[in-house]
Amino acid sequence: MYKVVDIDDAKTMVKEKYSKFSLDSEVIKVEESLGRTLFEEVVSKENVPHFNRSTVDGYSVISSETASASASSEILFDLVETIEIDDGNIKTLNKGECIYVPTGGMLPNKADSVVMIENTETLGDSILIGSPVSKYENVLLLGQDTKIGEAILEANHQVRPQDIGLMKSLGINKVKVYKRVTVAIISTGDEIVDPATEVLPLGKIRDINSYTLSSLLERLGANVVFQTVLLDDEDLLRNTIKEVEADIVLVSGGSSVGFKDNTFKVFEELGEVFVHGVAIKPGKPTIFGSSDKILIGLPGHPTSCLVVANVFLPFIINNLMGIEGLNPYIKMPALENLIGADGRAKYEMVKVENIDGELYAKPIRGKSGMISLMTRADGYVIINRNQEGIIKNKKVKVYLFK
Amino acid sequence: MYKVVDIDDAKTMVKEKYSKFSLDSEVIKVEESLGRTLFEEVVSKENVPHFNRSTVDGYSVISSETASASASSEILFDLVETIEIDDGNIKTLNKGECIYVPTGGMLPNKADSVVMIENTETLGDSILIGSPVSKYENVLLLGQDTKIGEAILEANHQVRPQDIGLMKSLGINKVKVYKRVTVAIISTGDEIVDPATEVLPLGKIRDINSYTLSSLLERLGANVVFQTVLLDDEDLLRNTIKEVEADIVLVSGGSSVGFKDNTFKVFEELGEVFVHGVAIKPGKPTIFGSSDKILIGLPGHPTSCLVVANVFLPFIINNLMGIEGLNPYIKMPALENLIGADGRAKYEMVKVENIDGELYAKPIRGKSGMISLMTRADGYVIINRNQEGIIKNKKVKVYLFK
Repeated sequence: MYKVVDIDDAKTMVKEKYSKFSLDSEVIKVEESLGRTLFEEVVSKENVPHFNRSTVDGYSVISSETASASASSEILFDLVETIEIDDGNIKTLNKGECIYVPTGGMLPNKADSVVMIENTETLGDSILIGSPVSKYENVLLLGQDTKIGEAILEANHQVRPQDIGLMKSLGINKVKVYKRVTVAIISTGDEIVDPATEVLPLGKIRDINSYTLSSLLERLGANVVFQTVLLDDEDLLRNTIKEVEADIVLVSGGSSVGFKDNTFKVFEELGEVFVHGVAIKPGKPTIFGSSDKILIGLPGHPTSCLVVANVFLPFIINNLMGIEGLNPYIKMPALENLIGADGRAKYEMVKVENIDGELYAKPIRGKSGMISLMTRADGYVIINRNQEGIIKNKKVKVYLFK
Repeated sequence: MYKVVDIDDAKTMVKEKYSKFSLDSEVIKVEESLGRTLFEEVVSKENVPHFNRSTVDGYSVISSETASASASSEILFDLVETIEIDDGNIKTLNKGECIYVPTGGMLPNKADSVVMIENTETLGDSILIGSPVSKYENVLLLGQDTKIGEAILEANHQVRPQDIGLMKSLGINKVKVYKRVTVAIISTGDEIVDPATEVLPLGKIRDINSYTLSSLLERLGANVVFQTVLLDDEDLLRNTIKEVEADIVLVSGGSSVGFKDNTFKVFEELGEVFVHGVAIKPGKPTIFGSSDKILIGLPGHPTSCLVVANVFLPFIINNLMGIEGLNPYIKMPALENLIGADGRAKYEMVKVENIDGELYAKPIRGKSGMISLMTRADGYVIINRNQEGIIKNKKVKVYLFK
């Protein structure tokens, strides 16, 4: 028989056992890549800027010619031309000359700096300059921002709005990302009925987990391809898992004892089970296994299900994309005492309060099994097994829900 | 003429002037409401649980009958029945009797508590109980989680995965949310070309802002209905703004001086301009006005545009949904010194580093106008006007990008 394991041990096993699974890549339009994970680094095909560019409105000069300029001894330059912002013709500057360049405009040949317009005076066709500029002052040199062949975004980076703007501006219109992981969600339990059920028969409850899970998975960038409620029937469960086409099958059970056995048994028949019970409270009845698919059994209790899903699903999905690392956490003081559970790690739901920019973890109190608990929680704190609890004002690690 | 105003003053004016605009509501399916903002509170139509429910596997009893139980003096109860998880028939308990109830099962009449199975022993058809239970121990009473008519989610709440699960489980299938705000994005500037342009002519740059803005707006839940690149032409800009159907028109300009005047002039002709220039660096050339639409002029510099969009767009969109409040920030120590700008608030781009759960703000260095700056930034720190700078290790307020 299997015995209950620690979260970290479960994660180690999950990582090793699921290493045979991975996500393929696909090429998509850059403007549709928001939130997707890059399969490979993105390399610039161009220099940015692709000419020496002024970063201010002003007069391009040869910097050495301004070296002796001062307020009491201004230097006169001939204004020989005004460059338009979109001027594609390359001018050339001669000694004693300056050429007006707008912000973003192209510098003439030989010019190596720009004097800001507010630091100059106009005198007929000439410009008076009263302070020196250094070489390359107010200039972005060709390729100084980004060079051809330079990686502008790393592999495994999650695409943000500004990344899309950057890629598009570099003429990059397609990008290679990981395919979305496909997930099937099965809720089982004789007491569970479809949420569409109008009038609830006595003793029954509407399914809550499949919708919580599918929305969570949507946030994680997954593609939920199948969602159903099944009676607690071994054959039904086995056949459903066998036939569904998905990378991951999530089975969230009812709270009856029979449930756990069914899921475990079916998983074993279809492949192998390597974790049966994780030492977290709430959430103990958690199962990890695999066939040709990743098989995960989640507890039926809504809060437990949410916690376990938040602890393991981002970890597993990241692993499928070759991204190492555990769930990120933020340390913040607890607003109240937290009490541990005997011999098991306990996941205490907390609300994160932002009081003038300082974050605090406020435990959410309620009886086990209350579904309203989870709508008030922003994340959770882990109280380790054998840890009696956490004292108020002590810093705790808060793992935020996605 | 207008003069440059502080960010806070700009926000006050924006709030007052745009108060005539607001978003309508629409009713959508609960499972499609992830990330949407509730127009009104969501009220439970049912009691949860809708029967007295056991939170453990065990034997339901009349608690007063266990009062004298101890390890040395166990009390014997007749096991008269076993309730199935989905049993809809109400049993009744008599004195000296117990009935088995699984986790989630319905308590018999008269029973007021459940003794956990692990705290009992079986003796033929009887159950030995060796410690007392208190009234309502291991029981969730009818409506204790959520009562009929109780608000389970507040108005203006942004829907999360667990909220969807909760609503579905309560038989709530439709929800009233704010309509998505519709936005038109116009990039202007003679030097700007469509990002689809394969080979960039000398002196030109591909549009970067419209894609950054549309992806950012997607994150903010907006609906980008129109997106174009225009030459710097007054009539063209005026007609485009007039004809487009959107709640908000964003005009991001080139960096040429001519641009600012065009946008300002056209906004004034179409309605009014009440902010022309905001004292932030980068981002000074920012315009707020309105006609029958909200009209916003953003700076052309990509980093400036991103900063101004992040400072004002969530604020404006929230206001349209009656949500007060400024952008949230988190305080964290700066990893390096930050230097201010003379007489203007300065927005310093920072990367947020999470070192073992402690957050730090690391300034991103680079020349003004570098587009690669913004791909490295997670947010920004404001250095107030007349503030010389911020010393390393001092806590700063970091406003995170969406």
